[in-house]
Amino acid sequence: MTFSFSIVLVWLDLAGVFFFAVSGSLLAARKQFDIIGSLLLASVVGLGGGVIRDIIINAGPPVAFTNPAYLAPPLLAAALVYFLFSSVQRFTSLLVLFDAVGLALFCITGTLLALSAGMHPMAAALLGVTTAVGGGLLRDITANEVPRLFDPKDLYALPAFAGAAMTVVLSITGTFNAVTGSAVAAVVFAFRVTAWRRHWYVPLAVRGWHRLRTDAAKSGTED
Amino acid sequence: MTFSFSIVLVWLDLAGVFFFAVSGSLLAARKQFDIIGSLLLASVVGLGGGVIRDIIINAGPPVAFTNPAYLAPPLLAAALVYFLFSSVQRFTSLLVLFDAVGLALFCITGTLLALSAGMHPMAAALLGVTTAVGGGLLRDITANEVPRLFDPKDLYALPAFAGAAMTVVLSITGTFNAVTGSAVAAVVFAFRVTAWRRHWYVPLAVRGWHRLRTDAAKSGTED
Amino acid sequence: MTFSFSIVLVWLDLAGVFFFAVSGSLLAARKQFDIIGSLLLASVVGLGGGVIRDIIINAGPPVAFTNPAYLAPPLLAAALVYFLFSSVQRFTSLLVLFDAVGLALFCITGTLLALSAGMHPMAAALLGVTTAVGGGLLRDITANEVPRLFDPKDLYALPAFAGAAMTVVLSITGTFNAVTGSAVAAVVFAFRVTAWRRHWYVPLAVRGWHRLRTDAAKSGTED
Repeated sequence: MTFSFSIVLVWLDLAGVFFFAVSGSLLAARKQFDIIGSLLLASVVGLGGGVIRDIIINAGPPVAFTNPAYLAPPLLAAALVYFLFSSVQRFTSLLVLFDAVGLALFCITGTLLALSAGMHPMAAALLGVTTAVGGGLLRDITANEVPRLFDPKDLYALPAFAGAAMTVVLSITGTFNAVTGSAVAAVVFAFRVTAWRRHWYVPLAVRGWHRLRTDAAKSGTED
Repeated sequence: MTFSFSIVLVWLDLAGVFFFAVSGSLLAARKQFDIIGSLLLASVVGLGGGVIRDIIINAGPPVAFTNPAYLAPPLLAAALVYFLFSSVQRFTSLLVLFDAVGLALFCITGTLLALSAGMHPMAAALLGVTTAVGGGLLRDITANEVPRLFDPKDLYALPAFAGAAMTVVLSITGTFNAVTGSAVAAVVFAFRVTAWRRHWYVPLAVRGWHRLRTDAAKSGTED
Repeated sequence: MTFSFSIVLVWLDLAGVFFFAVSGSLLAARKQFDIIGSLLLASVVGLGGGVIRDIIINAGPPVAFTNPAYLAPPLLAAALVYFLFSSVQRFTSLLVLFDAVGLALFCITGTLLALSAGMHPMAAALLGVTTAVGGGLLRDITANEVPRLFDPKDLYALPAFAGAAMTVVLSITGTFNAVTGSAVAAVVFAFRVTAWRRHWYVPLAVRGWHRLRTDAAKSGTED
């Protein structure tokens, strides 16, 4: 991995932190947390997935604690939500969109960082998915919400699996670059948002059990 | 630790992962999660305790991320529950039985792995208990259930403590082998299941406070 | 850091573990957990913040697992609550007071341990705050409570931020000693308890949104 590529990776990682952090501050706003709770939840969501990733890679303290640049996105996110957010009409949509950008960026950067740490491809893909869904899972557990990750009326993990798998294939075939990487991010984002808007499902955990379509369609849009 | 012993330890660890993973998929089914949620919860429960153990031992990335064999049990568990599970009558019993096998295996393998990593006996026993109860605690927190670990009408941690203590004593006296190890697993499993069926209690957190016997007996069987 | 200073640091850390552990056992009592649940929750709260800190510093297994002395405070806390606690009138006050002492000690010891591990000042302060609020966050998540950390009617993280910042400034100017350290602990404790008693707030996550003063004042005292 060349120096310039590492730099790009850090910027993409910081961008992912920012988008997830905004989703945390938006949830804090909806839950009527105060400005410090907003900053803390922004930090948990934005930095949580990466901290889990770095702890599992086990190559020194997590980058969120060693590189002060990682403190900027949560501060920025809490400030943005504090000053710019004033209506609740489009609340869920906004949260899902920011969350989807974070998901798209993190399943790529998490996988690439795991590969560059020398993990084998399958472990790297798994760690990419863990990085991508970890922050959001911590967000929902911390705020005492039912984790979106387990919502049977929403596809959340599948786009991250797809993105991590594509990143691994592109990397080991030597064809991962700015163009293909952007394409992967766009596919993951589009997959995630379309699945949410169109109420795409996968089967329930037990064959032959069915969700109630009407309820599902309703809850999906209201949340 | 000889090579063959390590191999046996990995197989027992994989078996523990499988049994806990089934308990995760069963809970996913009861909570009406979809098939991906079932796979994720199976992974969290089956691999969670071991990942915590390996992070605390701090000797490289967790084995769940470096040995692809650890991905098979959650896949198998989610598939089994999807294809074979069709009635809910014996649901809680099944979950408790699979969970009890996982508990019995993990309090032993967790303790042995900690000892082989050079931790002192008391720390090894503590880490064995943490490994054994960690996955189930993550399962219940993730699925937004009151953790079974803290249910005052159920003995959950005590069998794990007993199993870890027996494993430490057998190991440091050099008498841990296939026969004694199997005996420990059987004792832990029998202790856990009997405590659950017979409503064995320990005192509440404050002396002189009493639970309501009738309610306890009722809730115990219904879950 | 001299040898004697390290010893003092370990004793202060153990004291922090004890105070947090008592808050865990008090919550276990209020939630009607049994004596083992009380011991487990005492361990999670007392040792959780430090385990997270040591995992992030990444310099070998967490001290809670390598130094058996760390097992004493949770045992002592569960025993104290079992034998001495008999009335619920002053329950919340007691929990907040013990929690506040733990917070004051941990934001200092966490910051000092991070600095002595070679982390840069901002990361050390952040890790001090994480250590201080981590145990209580785990306590509330584990016991399925809304985390006090995110309660908009209560200032919880701000005193820890202040204490960690003061500790960093004193340390890098070489003026941290028994007197100044005690002063920092006293300020953090007084700040935390006064904020709780006087219902000090910070603004909500969104500018222009207001909490209902009356409800806030009521809930603050009842909890």
